[in-house]
Amino acid sequence: MEGNLKQALCAWQNILGLEYVITDEASLKVSQTATFLTTQRTLAIIQPGDRAEVQQCLKIANQYQIPIYPISTGKNWGYGSSVPVQDSCVIMSLARLNGIVDYDEKLAYVTVEPGVTQRQLFEYLQSQKSNLWMSVTGSTPDSSLIGNILERGLGEGLYGDRFNYVCGLEVVLPTGECIHTGFGRFAEARAVRVNRWGVGPYVDGLFTQSNLGVVTQMTLWLTPIPKYFQLFWYAINEDTRLEDLVDSVRYLKMQGLIPSAFVINNDIRMLSYQQQYPWQEAEGEMPLPLDLRHQLRKQWGGGLWGGEAALYSASQEHGQVVCELIQKTLGKVVNKLYFLDDAIAQMPKTTLTEMFPNIDTDEMLKWYNENPKRGFPTELALSMTYWRKSSPRPSSGINPDRDGCGLLWCSPAVPFVGQHVRKAVKIIEETTNAYFFEPNIGLNCITERNINITAAIVYDRGVSGEDERALACYEDMRCRLIHAGYFPYRLSTHSMQALPPAQDDYNQFLNKLKQVLDPNNILAPGRYEFYQPDHVPFQGS
Amino acid sequence: MEGNLKQALCAWQNILGLEYVITDEASLKVSQTATFLTTQRTLAIIQPGDRAEVQQCLKIANQYQIPIYPISTGKNWGYGSSVPVQDSCVIMSLARLNGIVDYDEKLAYVTVEPGVTQRQLFEYLQSQKSNLWMSVTGSTPDSSLIGNILERGLGEGLYGDRFNYVCGLEVVLPTGECIHTGFGRFAEARAVRVNRWGVGPYVDGLFTQSNLGVVTQMTLWLTPIPKYFQLFWYAINEDTRLEDLVDSVRYLKMQGLIPSAFVINNDIRMLSYQQQYPWQEAEGEMPLPLDLRHQLRKQWGGGLWGGEAALYSASQEHGQVVCELIQKTLGKVVNKLYFLDDAIAQMPKTTLTEMFPNIDTDEMLKWYNENPKRGFPTELALSMTYWRKSSPRPSSGINPDRDGCGLLWCSPAVPFVGQHVRKAVKIIEETTNAYFFEPNIGLNCITERNINITAAIVYDRGVSGEDERALACYEDMRCRLIHAGYFPYRLSTHSMQALPPAQDDYNQFLNKLKQVLDPNNILAPGRYEFYQPDHVPFQGS
Repeated sequence: MEGNLKQALCAWQNILGLEYVITDEASLKVSQTATFLTTQRTLAIIQPGDRAEVQQCLKIANQYQIPIYPISTGKNWGYGSSVPVQDSCVIMSLARLNGIVDYDEKLAYVTVEPGVTQRQLFEYLQSQKSNLWMSVTGSTPDSSLIGNILERGLGEGLYGDRFNYVCGLEVVLPTGECIHTGFGRFAEARAVRVNRWGVGPYVDGLFTQSNLGVVTQMTLWLTPIPKYFQLFWYAINEDTRLEDLVDSVRYLKMQGLIPSAFVINNDIRMLSYQQQYPWQEAEGEMPLPLDLRHQLRKQWGGGLWGGEAALYSASQEHGQVVCELIQKTLGKVVNKLYFLDDAIAQMPKTTLTEMFPNIDTDEMLKWYNENPKRGFPTELALSMTYWRKSSPRPSSGINPDRDGCGLLWCSPAVPFVGQHVRKAVKIIEETTNAYFFEPNIGLNCITERNINITAAIVYDRGVSGEDERALACYEDMRCRLIHAGYFPYRLSTHSMQALPPAQDDYNQFLNKLKQVLDPNNILAPGRYEFYQPDHVPFQGS
Repeated sequence: MEGNLKQALCAWQNILGLEYVITDEASLKVSQTATFLTTQRTLAIIQPGDRAEVQQCLKIANQYQIPIYPISTGKNWGYGSSVPVQDSCVIMSLARLNGIVDYDEKLAYVTVEPGVTQRQLFEYLQSQKSNLWMSVTGSTPDSSLIGNILERGLGEGLYGDRFNYVCGLEVVLPTGECIHTGFGRFAEARAVRVNRWGVGPYVDGLFTQSNLGVVTQMTLWLTPIPKYFQLFWYAINEDTRLEDLVDSVRYLKMQGLIPSAFVINNDIRMLSYQQQYPWQEAEGEMPLPLDLRHQLRKQWGGGLWGGEAALYSASQEHGQVVCELIQKTLGKVVNKLYFLDDAIAQMPKTTLTEMFPNIDTDEMLKWYNENPKRGFPTELALSMTYWRKSSPRPSSGINPDRDGCGLLWCSPAVPFVGQHVRKAVKIIEETTNAYFFEPNIGLNCITERNINITAAIVYDRGVSGEDERALACYEDMRCRLIHAGYFPYRLSTHSMQALPPAQDDYNQFLNKLKQVLDPNNILAPGRYEFYQPDHVPFQGS
């Protein structure tokens, strides 16, 4: 192996140049650091500069049997950052493939490479004076668009189920060949960037949550800036209202009144956006004492559960009708419901202060104008990773890997029904409490029938023993959720083997695909692989 | 081979019983008949009764190396009906797997087997007094839901891009194993029927337009009956308006005002819904003389291009605002634009006659109430297959295979831009004219960026020489469309090899998947397979 590695490094250096084959200890250490405890060591970091180099790098990896772990920008925070699933991999960073290779205003799409970040696309659209908005995630502005979509991440806006709004992938296979999905394999086809399915089997899904290929290009669909935009927020003060709130939102989504991403956050999630853990007031106690939690909630003005959402309408009248219908349904189940539009935003400050008591209206207006729901990427959501830190969080340039912020995402999918949400939330609350963490919960209502819950275990990696406690909490939560039927919609690198065995021949099926596409098991071994030894073929019950 | 076949038939008889292994000449002849010339012979028809029998049948097929061609109900009219792509296959009919195995009103889904027809689901929903509507296709009420979706067929309503609104497939692999997609491989997972992606690679797409598995179960999503329903229709009288019409519809769809399926039909398509070829008036001339075409159009009251669409709104006010916005945009580019809702439908007949001159208002009301856009499957669309027949078309129970109706679909995908549509339409018009057929064109505007054109070559198979002329016309049309960059979104069984070579390694990739999943090449050989001999690995340009 060691001899092989040396030869492979040499071959990569020949292709990429010395500067793009990185082996210094400091860089490797960074690449081995996640937001939770990891022990995997990385052998090197290679940085190809284009698709052809990606192909050559993989061929060399096959030749010398060195496993490769591709990352886009490596900011898969809370799910494993840049750390490979298995020990002794070479990381292939795709950050240098950062071209915006196509853009069409009329048909509302952009074609990007994996190194293109949210910030980069945002600035590009601004520079084009584009009439289009992008769907952003809650991750850092410096995270890769493609990286998140391939993990089937969730976003804001009308295209929040992000993988549903992309097409035309360029994929380098584990053995170095290259394919183009949809109509892309035909050089002259016109509908490549506008048609998802192409002709023949639809294969794009194979390259999401998988280790079957390296995506080097993808077309993302964008949404036209609406004629009329409204932001609204809501909150409930009694926990018992949660079921009704969930069922009402399902009703509104089924009626087509809220087609965009809608989130229901608990108080801890909202609080941790605003501030860090109140160590002094809590007198060192953990988890956050209930009376203090209540007091902070009151002080900050948030409810027990709440959030904000946006309406994208074709005219003011259109938006107003929708607003009234939402008020009619949601008004019955929430304690607070405010709508904000351009007309209100332009009112005199004194009027605004009257309309929105206890709210910093300057802050509110800035947030209204530079909102993720308008395609502005922000650091707000992930600044919560500093919640348990004793040192202050940076005002910009957050980096939980670097700063020892502990973060583990536990992400069950539940049917869009109040009672199911309640059961899953109860498990999350009980488990976090038992391990002295706060329940930090977002209910992501992107589609009409399913809710993806994101439960964050947030802690300070700098405190001895916390790494182990967080992992134990995660393990307990995961097991109890699965036992109740709420399976994760996304896995972190340390939990790829955490699913129960399949009841059918699915794992063997997936293994077959892996073996035929990656006979040397070179690409991200262990990533979204589900082993099942001693298999008896499935005959049904 | 012959000895093998006998043994296989014997083994299938043991499993299925004698009555479900069909080899009589009359039945085989039916199974070999499509709406265009085919020469493939089928060896037998086997009819498993459940999933386990499907698995056993495929294992026997592997054992004796007999290729199997699965059909649901075999009504893939215009794309090959039940006729296998290659000669000497045994047809596996899934019509006996016709269970509706799950239904949920609240979460708006139904789980069906491949034998379930549009009519069956429609009647089921009626019997349940369901608050939900299904997306129906233009095909016969007796066609399979799953069969059409696996071909990525187009439907009516909000879920017209039908494959986009299904999940939880049960698939028997070519070698007889069984997998469940999404979360379905976990017996206890709750989100199986509400979450499309599951965890790990998304593989559902592999089983659409392919020969990689037999889908024995699928969950379809349904839409709630809207609070307020409107039907509207429109027409243009000058061909030069087509580009503006297309671009306006794109604008409206991008604005979210017409999220449902929208179709733009040409005059021939609309005429052939209403009547058969006017042999007498045309004095035997073909294609339809332009002056006669003009006269019939006038007489029937339709335009050169037109169609109908539906609005599904959460309240009357909501629907009215949308209606006004559509009128504002579409009104500028069309010659006619009528809206119909319950209030209008309930007006006195005299008022209606005034409002809709030259229209049979009884017919109109029946159509309004029993419209495909409300989930009513009808025979209307495919009754056009009798257009060129000299004998009258049946008033119900149409069957183009049986009645010698010629039909070939040529289905290019084009970007949703007036100029692209014009180029493709011009090719279709020129080609059909050159071969003495009428251009019979539908522009299917389902999504925001892409239009799937369906050009039908409709003829009388009973007339000597027409089969050959139709195929020659199809071939010419296909080549010219591809040369212009407009590739087919769906293939008929006789044109699986009609695509140009891939510019990359896609075909080898697909072959690898086929080989590993179907090592004996048992399942539907040739179906959506794209050979490419003498391959040189793709390195890009």
